[in-house]
Amino acid sequence: MLYHVRMDVRVPHDVDPARFEALKAEEKARAQALQREGKWRHLWRIVGQYANVSVFDVADHDELHAILASLPLFPFMEIAVTPLARHPSALD
Amino acid sequence: MLYHVRMDVRVPHDVDPARFEALKAEEKARAQALQREGKWRHLWRIVGQYANVSVFDVADHDELHAILASLPLFPFMEIAVTPLARHPSALD
Amino acid sequence: MLYHVRMDVRVPHDVDPARFEALKAEEKARAQALQREGKWRHLWRIVGQYANVSVFDVADHDELHAILASLPLFPFMEIAVTPLARHPSALD
Amino acid sequence: MLYHVRMDVRVPHDVDPARFEALKAEEKARAQALQREGKWRHLWRIVGQYANVSVFDVADHDELHAILASLPLFPFMEIAVTPLARHPSALD
Amino acid sequence: MLYHVRMDVRVPHDVDPARFEALKAEEKARAQALQREGKWRHLWRIVGQYANVSVFDVADHDELHAILASLPLFPFMEIAVTPLARHPSALD
Amino acid sequence: MLYHVRMDVRVPHDVDPARFEALKAEEKARAQALQREGKWRHLWRIVGQYANVSVFDVADHDELHAILASLPLFPFMEIAVTPLARHPSALD
Amino acid sequence: MLYHVRMDVRVPHDVDPARFEALKAEEKARAQALQREGKWRHLWRIVGQYANVSVFDVADHDELHAILASLPLFPFMEIAVTPLARHPSALD
Amino acid sequence: MLYHVRMDVRVPHDVDPARFEALKAEEKARAQALQREGKWRHLWRIVGQYANVSVFDVADHDELHAILASLPLFPFMEIAVTPLARHPSALD
Amino acid sequence: MLYHVRMDVRVPHDVDPARFEALKAEEKARAQALQREGKWRHLWRIVGQYANVSVFDVADHDELHAILASLPLFPFMEIAVTPLARHPSALD
Amino acid sequence: MLYHVRMDVRVPHDVDPARFEALKAEEKARAQALQREGKWRHLWRIVGQYANVSVFDVADHDELHAILASLPLFPFMEIAVTPLARHPSALD
Repeated sequence: MLYHVRMDVRVPHDVDPARFEALKAEEKARAQALQREGKWRHLWRIVGQYANVSVFDVADHDELHAILASLPLFPFMEIAVTPLARHPSALD
Repeated sequence: MLYHVRMDVRVPHDVDPARFEALKAEEKARAQALQREGKWRHLWRIVGQYANVSVFDVADHDELHAILASLPLFPFMEIAVTPLARHPSALD
Repeated sequence: MLYHVRMDVRVPHDVDPARFEALKAEEKARAQALQREGKWRHLWRIVGQYANVSVFDVADHDELHAILASLPLFPFMEIAVTPLARHPSALD
Repeated sequence: MLYHVRMDVRVPHDVDPARFEALKAEEKARAQALQREGKWRHLWRIVGQYANVSVFDVADHDELHAILASLPLFPFMEIAVTPLARHPSALD
Repeated sequence: MLYHVRMDVRVPHDVDPARFEALKAEEKARAQALQREGKWRHLWRIVGQYANVSVFDVADHDELHAILASLPLFPFMEIAVTPLARHPSALD
Repeated sequence: MLYHVRMDVRVPHDVDPARFEALKAEEKARAQALQREGKWRHLWRIVGQYANVSVFDVADHDELHAILASLPLFPFMEIAVTPLARHPSALD
Repeated sequence: MLYHVRMDVRVPHDVDPARFEALKAEEKARAQALQREGKWRHLWRIVGQYANVSVFDVADHDELHAILASLPLFPFMEIAVTPLARHPSALD
Repeated sequence: MLYHVRMDVRVPHDVDPARFEALKAEEKARAQALQREGKWRHLWRIVGQYANVSVFDVADHDELHAILASLPLFPFMEIAVTPLARHPSALD
Repeated sequence: MLYHVRMDVRVPHDVDPARFEALKAEEKARAQALQREGKWRHLWRIVGQYANVSVFDVADHDELHAILASLPLFPFMEIAVTPLARHPSALD
Repeated sequence: MLYHVRMDVRVPHDVDPARFEALKAEEKARAQALQREGKWRHLWRIVGQYANVSVFDVADHDELHAILASLPLFPFMEIAVTPLARHPSALD
């Protein structure tokens, strides 16, 4: 099932830079692993913002929550999830 | 170039039903033609709403505006456009 | 899977009263049928508003959208859907 | 009487992790005790957020406020309470 | 139990004036009857707006909803209900 | 003259607890003195929130501002003031 | 006492033009009479909008509401009232 | 002096099409005349919306209001005006 | 030219009190000097808030920005500027 | 292609002043270099705010994001990007 997910990262200005860079590297590795598994189907950067628009393809709500809540940057993100259904005019 | 587009359709309760059904049929045909041309890359229904989330792949802003403004349901839609850039963690 | 759904009904002041009463009766019958089938698990009235908070238990996004979009009052409702996951502190 | 309650937890990035984990453990124990007493009737996680949707069944407003204000994570939560009435189409 | 209720009246510009005046007269009679019964405890006009702030004292959520939904102007009102608890610093 | 006042208290998570408890005690004493003087006519707790809804009865705007701005918790409160007029349907 | 008042006029597109022009002429006469009486102290146009920012100087809330609610364009206006106190840095 | 102006056109679905087309033609002529005079310095379409972002260069607030309020589509537009100052990093 | 300006002061709870009092004293002196020069024409306190509504009378946008940006409390203020035009019903 | 960009700078009150001044100097140099290259076409200050409205002229979304995300003040800015198309009434 498909879910539209928007993630906005809020970086506190007094966060420890080294700690944050480490989290970003972990986040990148995790995002790429999930893409390879076919669960994180699309990942786009919103122009001008530290934010992304994504589409996930997972078995159910619990799997999606488990994935999002375990992302290394989860504590710094504001996340909005929208369930997507098939559109009657879609070809695919 | 990719653009994230959300369209919310607002149907006035006193619109002429036959006229509206005709517009919907035209809209569907147009949406499918644009998908076949590769310009309307994704089209998903937002669950519970007369609304969609789409991704367009067009040459530039003018082409996107020309497409959206000529959709048969354009006068009944509220549209929000967000430009998408490549994400540094995206595999594709 | 569980979905939290809020529905706000907007009645245009110049709608035909007889037509609207007929739609309400159909809506009630449909709501009760869906409750009996176990798909519309909870249905509560928001105090002071022509609105409800509901919980649906359906197979997937497409089934939920099909149910909501076919409700007789759908054209008069503003609907917000929120996917619900299991809470780690929940007993049930 | 039933109340719909949404709780959003805001964790300050510079909170002491050990102190916060202790509060979370207390919160879980308290949430489970209240569920066993039948006062916290439903508890669901909102997918992708450190937030829940709950339904409480208590004697009156004062009891609900006493419960919510004494939750260990209360100082870190934004809470919205909506009173629920019986819906005329509800079967139960 | 006490509830804080705000009511905003929206008068469509093309409503039938005689019908609306009749509803207003019924509303006034009903509001005064409920005040005499002690259920509509406070009723104030918000300066500059066709709106009021009220406090109701009723047995439970269902009674409040029954009262509000049967007000003659209910179809023209936007209503927000907030449950009130005893304040620890209140003398009364 | 009557004023509707809503106060939301925002407690910074890193405030000194002893200092804050002292301010709360002063606030309570001040609130009770103002109630005894008849100026703070109503004081209710909003269920589930560190917030209150109040009604003040004072001579004029300047007196109200002087009272509110001198409350011990004023620096931690977000305050909204709404002037109240007599309602044509009010009995009192 | 001083009140800051913002008025936004919403003209329905299908209003009778002659009727509306008559109301506007009455509104202008009334606004000028109130200015001559010293009650409508300031009246400015917000650039680019059918809206004004005003300052009223009246005896109390009831007088202000009586004035505003009897303006010929009141049914077409959205009004926001803010009570003004003396500023400690003001010279006048 | 420069002003940033955003105009959103709202077309009622039951407006007379011939009348509206006539207004649009007048609006276009007026917009082009103002550009030739150097008063309407920039005029861009917001992609996907019946809206524009403009920059005006006029003598003062009164001149800008006179221009905007006399645009043929003014009754159908929502307009937001923002005054622009010289930026300390601007080259021009 | 006239500008309507609203200023909301946000005081961080951990600001150095002595430093802030010094800034407030400077702000007051500056506000009074600008009033004496006729540039800061009106200055009112919003009841219940650390905020003011003001009217400035200056030569142009650049002068207003220079004044506002050099106020001692500017770094702690949220400011909204609205240009004011002559109202056709104003007497003055 | 043209993009409308609004940037609001949020300066944390406890940021190191010397570090921030250094970033501002770098930002200014970078803004001027981009103007000389013709990519940052317009740069205006919003009166009364630490914010600007800009128009960029770049090859595509990726170039714009690369520019914005590398601005020295990017971590302190809230940025909103709006794609601009040619307006049918524009002369240029």
